[in-house]
Amino acid sequence: MVNSYIQPGDNPDLTAERRQATFDTEELTVLFQGSARSVKRRREIYDYYQRSPDLQDPVPVDFLDRVEKYENAQRKMALLTKHVPKVVPDGNFEDLMNFFSTVFQQDGFPLGLHNSMLIPTIENNADDEQKREWLPKARANAFIGTYAQTELGHGTNLRKLETTATYDPNTEEFVLHSPTVTASKWWPGNLGKSSNFTVVVARLISKGKDYGPHPFFVQIRDPVTHKSVPGVTVGDIGPKFGINTNDNGFLRFDHLRIPRRNMFMKNAKVQPDGTYIPPVHDKLAYGSMVYVRSFMIRGMAHHLAQAATVAIRYSAIRRQGEVTPGAGEVQVLDYQTQQYRLLPQVARAWAFEIAGRYTRYLYQEFLSGIDKGSAAILPELHAVTSGLKSLVTHHVCLGIEQSRMACGGHGYSAASGLPQLYGIVVGGCTYEGENMVMLLQCARFLVKIAAAIRKGVAPGFKSEATAYFFVNSASNGNVSTPSGALAALEHASRRLTLLAYDRLEAIKATGKSHNIAWTEAGVDLRRAATAHTRTFIVRQFIEFVKTVKATPATKAVLEDLLKLYVYYEVIEADGDLLFDGHLKGADIEAARVQIYEALRRLRPNAVSLVDAFDFNERELNSVIGRRDGHVYENLLKWAQNSPLNKNDVLPFHHKYLGKAMIDAQDGLFSKL
Amino acid sequence: MVNSYIQPGDNPDLTAERRQATFDTEELTVLFQGSARSVKRRREIYDYYQRSPDLQDPVPVDFLDRVEKYENAQRKMALLTKHVPKVVPDGNFEDLMNFFSTVFQQDGFPLGLHNSMLIPTIENNADDEQKREWLPKARANAFIGTYAQTELGHGTNLRKLETTATYDPNTEEFVLHSPTVTASKWWPGNLGKSSNFTVVVARLISKGKDYGPHPFFVQIRDPVTHKSVPGVTVGDIGPKFGINTNDNGFLRFDHLRIPRRNMFMKNAKVQPDGTYIPPVHDKLAYGSMVYVRSFMIRGMAHHLAQAATVAIRYSAIRRQGEVTPGAGEVQVLDYQTQQYRLLPQVARAWAFEIAGRYTRYLYQEFLSGIDKGSAAILPELHAVTSGLKSLVTHHVCLGIEQSRMACGGHGYSAASGLPQLYGIVVGGCTYEGENMVMLLQCARFLVKIAAAIRKGVAPGFKSEATAYFFVNSASNGNVSTPSGALAALEHASRRLTLLAYDRLEAIKATGKSHNIAWTEAGVDLRRAATAHTRTFIVRQFIEFVKTVKATPATKAVLEDLLKLYVYYEVIEADGDLLFDGHLKGADIEAARVQIYEALRRLRPNAVSLVDAFDFNERELNSVIGRRDGHVYENLLKWAQNSPLNKNDVLPFHHKYLGKAMIDAQDGLFSKL
Ligand SMILES: Cc1cc2nc3c(=O)[nH]c(=O)nc-3n(C[C@H](O)[C@H](O)[C@H](O)COP(=O)(O)OP(=O)(O)OC[C@H]3O[C@@H](n4cnc5c(N)ncnc54)[C@H](O)[C@@H]3O)c2cc1C
Ligand SMILES: Cc1cc2nc3c(=O)[nH]c(=O)nc-3n(C[C@H](O)[C@H](O)[C@H](O)COP(=O)(O)OP(=O)(O)OC[C@H]3O[C@@H](n4cnc5c(N)ncnc54)[C@H](O)[C@@H]3O)c2cc1C
Repeated sequence: MVNSYIQPGDNPDLTAERRQATFDTEELTVLFQGSARSVKRRREIYDYYQRSPDLQDPVPVDFLDRVEKYENAQRKMALLTKHVPKVVPDGNFEDLMNFFSTVFQQDGFPLGLHNSMLIPTIENNADDEQKREWLPKARANAFIGTYAQTELGHGTNLRKLETTATYDPNTEEFVLHSPTVTASKWWPGNLGKSSNFTVVVARLISKGKDYGPHPFFVQIRDPVTHKSVPGVTVGDIGPKFGINTNDNGFLRFDHLRIPRRNMFMKNAKVQPDGTYIPPVHDKLAYGSMVYVRSFMIRGMAHHLAQAATVAIRYSAIRRQGEVTPGAGEVQVLDYQTQQYRLLPQVARAWAFEIAGRYTRYLYQEFLSGIDKGSAAILPELHAVTSGLKSLVTHHVCLGIEQSRMACGGHGYSAASGLPQLYGIVVGGCTYEGENMVMLLQCARFLVKIAAAIRKGVAPGFKSEATAYFFVNSASNGNVSTPSGALAALEHASRRLTLLAYDRLEAIKATGKSHNIAWTEAGVDLRRAATAHTRTFIVRQFIEFVKTVKATPATKAVLEDLLKLYVYYEVIEADGDLLFDGHLKGADIEAARVQIYEALRRLRPNAVSLVDAFDFNERELNSVIGRRDGHVYENLLKWAQNSPLNKNDVLPFHHKYLGKAMIDAQDGLFSKL
Repeated sequence: MVNSYIQPGDNPDLTAERRQATFDTEELTVLFQGSARSVKRRREIYDYYQRSPDLQDPVPVDFLDRVEKYENAQRKMALLTKHVPKVVPDGNFEDLMNFFSTVFQQDGFPLGLHNSMLIPTIENNADDEQKREWLPKARANAFIGTYAQTELGHGTNLRKLETTATYDPNTEEFVLHSPTVTASKWWPGNLGKSSNFTVVVARLISKGKDYGPHPFFVQIRDPVTHKSVPGVTVGDIGPKFGINTNDNGFLRFDHLRIPRRNMFMKNAKVQPDGTYIPPVHDKLAYGSMVYVRSFMIRGMAHHLAQAATVAIRYSAIRRQGEVTPGAGEVQVLDYQTQQYRLLPQVARAWAFEIAGRYTRYLYQEFLSGIDKGSAAILPELHAVTSGLKSLVTHHVCLGIEQSRMACGGHGYSAASGLPQLYGIVVGGCTYEGENMVMLLQCARFLVKIAAAIRKGVAPGFKSEATAYFFVNSASNGNVSTPSGALAALEHASRRLTLLAYDRLEAIKATGKSHNIAWTEAGVDLRRAATAHTRTFIVRQFIEFVKTVKATPATKAVLEDLLKLYVYYEVIEADGDLLFDGHLKGADIEAARVQIYEALRRLRPNAVSLVDAFDFNERELNSVIGRRDGHVYENLLKWAQNSPLNKNDVLPFHHKYLGKAMIDAQDGLFSKL
């Protein structure tokens, strides 16, 4: 079949791999990236980038220090006005995001939060007049803003945020104040140096009454001089695991006054005299969290796919160990252990991409439900995206690390791009809802289902994803097909949800409050959420492969990936499946054999599978994951950039190390 | 009881925690650190460090770029001559290492490989004359050296190293040469800039015959000018996931000539005429690998303990979520999920410390065996340290990340010290034997045992750690005690070893060679190795707690940790234990309840338990893990150091971002 990534002059090992493809990579690419249009535009954008010397980095950014990285990002940012109209003339959002990630990669850039948080906040929380005033400027980047919610002392528990916005009816202003050290805003992206405006979430106080957290639109720097305004202390919070090009910042207020109309007033309002008007309904706030998480799941799936691309290409080039004497060393991809480390990551990347896609579809359903006056789907949608956010980020991070370590020593070098990728991506386990907290959110929904089951009442809401809770499972499960495996996983999920519920009720029966019981039953609640989320992903992936329109060759490879995915999940959950005898040891062993068989069939397609993800060199950011496979000479070339290599002998050598050695030599001689 | 870490002025939450201790922290500290003497010296050394202003860092090193970090390390290195005689006058090795890690912390320093690899190589591989010549200079640091084995193209498979050392009898010299790009040495620590000498492992060629890899002692830089000598290209390999203060380097030879006597000649020799004399026995090389790994396991256990210290102290300070309305927010350590994330890390740190201690004991047994002419214990010792090296590094890294993520947003900041710790420690999954390869090494030994069992012949060697393979297990296991749990884990290990062996034989029965079958059965072999290694750790920990001399209060807390450890392992292996019905679901549920009960009992001791590890602030390197608990004000203080905070408005702002915003504003106005 056709692997369209073959080019003359490539590393012959990669070319040989690509020639083995049993499917057409272009067909798979379109399925993964979503549409032929997307694929075409992705490639055009990358070509445009390559033809634009001013957008290139002077050296690989890994060799820049933080200030230099940030300056480089600002420099490229200033060029956008010139380039964007040429490369994305229709302003298509997906293309724009794609162009930004090609230019800036993943480590952060001054407009990151402006695009992802500030503009959507205006769109969703400003009233019409506010929108008219703020939105055009925001879209033109006439100011740059971010979203400041988290404080030194509070992230998860928003209700206890300490920043206050106290209304003063005399001047018709809010007074923003940080009463304590822990009230300092801390973490918001691009807050430290880039932003001159920001959304601030503060506790609204009017007429002596505390109405809890509300969003305000606040100017923090002068639009011309960029100096922080009086009453504002703002700066960078220092280096982090990743996104060091991002100036995540801190912000303290000392009685800063802002006009009344800088409170976002689409929902709640404060009238000139200080009268507070509560929002009509507040469910919608959840809607936008769901939206952000759906996109996040997709991004995560792609990051895992990137790591797998790097590791699989490299594993086809890396030769280590002579298995048959005299036959030369084998590609490390020929070791079953290596396949077992890497190919499940490819399968998971697909599974997560499909799950993310389906949540975006559900979100659309939700929106059209809203139009018809129903938000019935929201609790479930919130539960499933909370669970997915947590499970997917967790597995993606484990998968990136497995991919990285599967590259041996070179995986540890920044040249592989994988340490940086991990450092950046793993932030996603914490932001947009800390993972453990998210699973407990999901469990809240499951406990309601369990209560309905235990009480024998009809559930308030039943859907495709939860229907299985209300069905009795076959007494003996089997895993001879992916659907059989799904039924077994559903059985386990049902059991775990009921177990968590019963544990919770048992603690309550000892006289403890629901809330206290909840803190004491967390581990079982978390397990239930994980098990339920797993069924969701498995179900969507099965459904996708069943219904996908594809040639038989492509469908066959997707079926192999599906099997690998599903049986890998079965193995991971083996204890839960064997627990009550629903599955037998023989079933687990059968699942394992299915995995080994799937690995064997997928091995010849391994490189073509990751090629078909269609990531470009900017996205991969990896010397060892290059499409052309010329790894070793480029590692050498890359290392030349190290500032330590500027001089053979470092300027300070003779002052320190050199002097110490000479002194020691003298010491030895004097002893003679 | 007594927690000796209480001081006036501390964060009251920490003080309250410490007052709850049910045991004497000093007693536990001595048990963990090994002896009262060690504890005393550790503290004296830290005090000395604190009293030495010249050894302090100018700012937290996280704010330095790589060159500055390295310069700072050189600066402190040059001060050692002055300080070492004062602080470690008797030259005690443990104290010296302790002093170094207090001064330089974990990110690398110019003498790292000199101490850990070069000096031991001279000690073990040089003949007496060579030792006389090289050792005094090495010990005085009159030169600095490293150990250069890995090449761009080869790490694991030493037999295929490409660097050659060709003997020239005319001049009685070896010619060192790197014939290809992939022959470049790549990775050796301190090679790039610090070292002027190095051990080089190269393929010895004499009289046209290739004798495979041998170690040579090679000068690469001028002892006075420090310039790289002709025939040598050497430099830094660039930034990495961690140890960026370490100048891991590359090295290429262009026909560099070295004297014949620079071949290490304790074992193999080359005579002046080029005649090769093979070593008498080569088993001993394994011995020193075992030695290094035993120490590595201890270091790893301590790193996990450090991460747990940071996360548990912070979790006692961090308040998030009001569980009982009006009662104020709870410490996050009160959530069962948080305890489940963190306390097992404390238990594992103990288990790994004990396992490492026991391998050091076995190593001593091995040495005294050697004295009596027997190396019988070596294969098993090699197997068990290979397995431990892999399992321990893997679990330590997962545990560090769990600890880090349990700190929410602040865990992601370099201020927590945990991102750096992870980046540094995770290298240990790759160096000293790539983890997957190590497990397969361990499996090689297990397969021999399985063969003996299947063939019904007596094993060649039987020991405490492998005796269980030759015993039939009870038909029904139980986990009512840790010993019961161990027996069940042994049962599973035995089954997995036999399964892997049978799979291997089945593949061979299809006509494939042993080596090929080995590559195809890797996943099951790896599982067997993991299961066996787990039994080793559990057994040693049980034994330790059973025999430890301690007061009842201390023993009680160790018993809780043991239970937490053992039942956590049972839960992790639940599928393997349920597989053949050896355990029932009820047993697994019982193990889980044991965990919950252990968490409940350990909760009040949590802070005292980590205090008792006795890590000082240099070792913890964490703003949020401080003994005094003053987290928030110090986060603010720490962030002030960020170079991005030097100016309120960055010098390049108006050139880039500022200009872009003003242009956009003008654009908007012109549209009006
Ligand atoms: C890279 C990055 C970027 C960020 N960007 C922004 C931004 O742009 N704007 C912004 O406002 N913020 C931002 N944040 C902050 C982020 O939203 C918070 O860090 C996150 O919400 C977690 O909150 P926390 O830090 O308070 O963690 P905590 O809530 O303090 O969590 C600590 C521990 O307590 C546990 N815990 C807390 N509550 C509960 C509970 N109810 N039940 C059980 N366990 C609990 C958690 O599981 C965790 O283990 C960012 C953070 C990061 C790391
Ligand atoms: C931080 C750090 C410090 C180091 N310091 C030094 C130093 O001071 N001196 C020095 O000489 N070197 C050093 N090294 C190099 C290190 O020893 C090697 O990276 C390590 O031995 C792994 O070898 P490799 O990189 O060739 O990995 P590879 O062997 O190429 O491994 C790649 C993949 O192939 C798999 N694989 C390889 N062989 C087999 C097999 N037979 N069966 C199954 N799977 C296999 C592995 O499991 C892995 O997944 C350092 C490395 C690091 C990361």
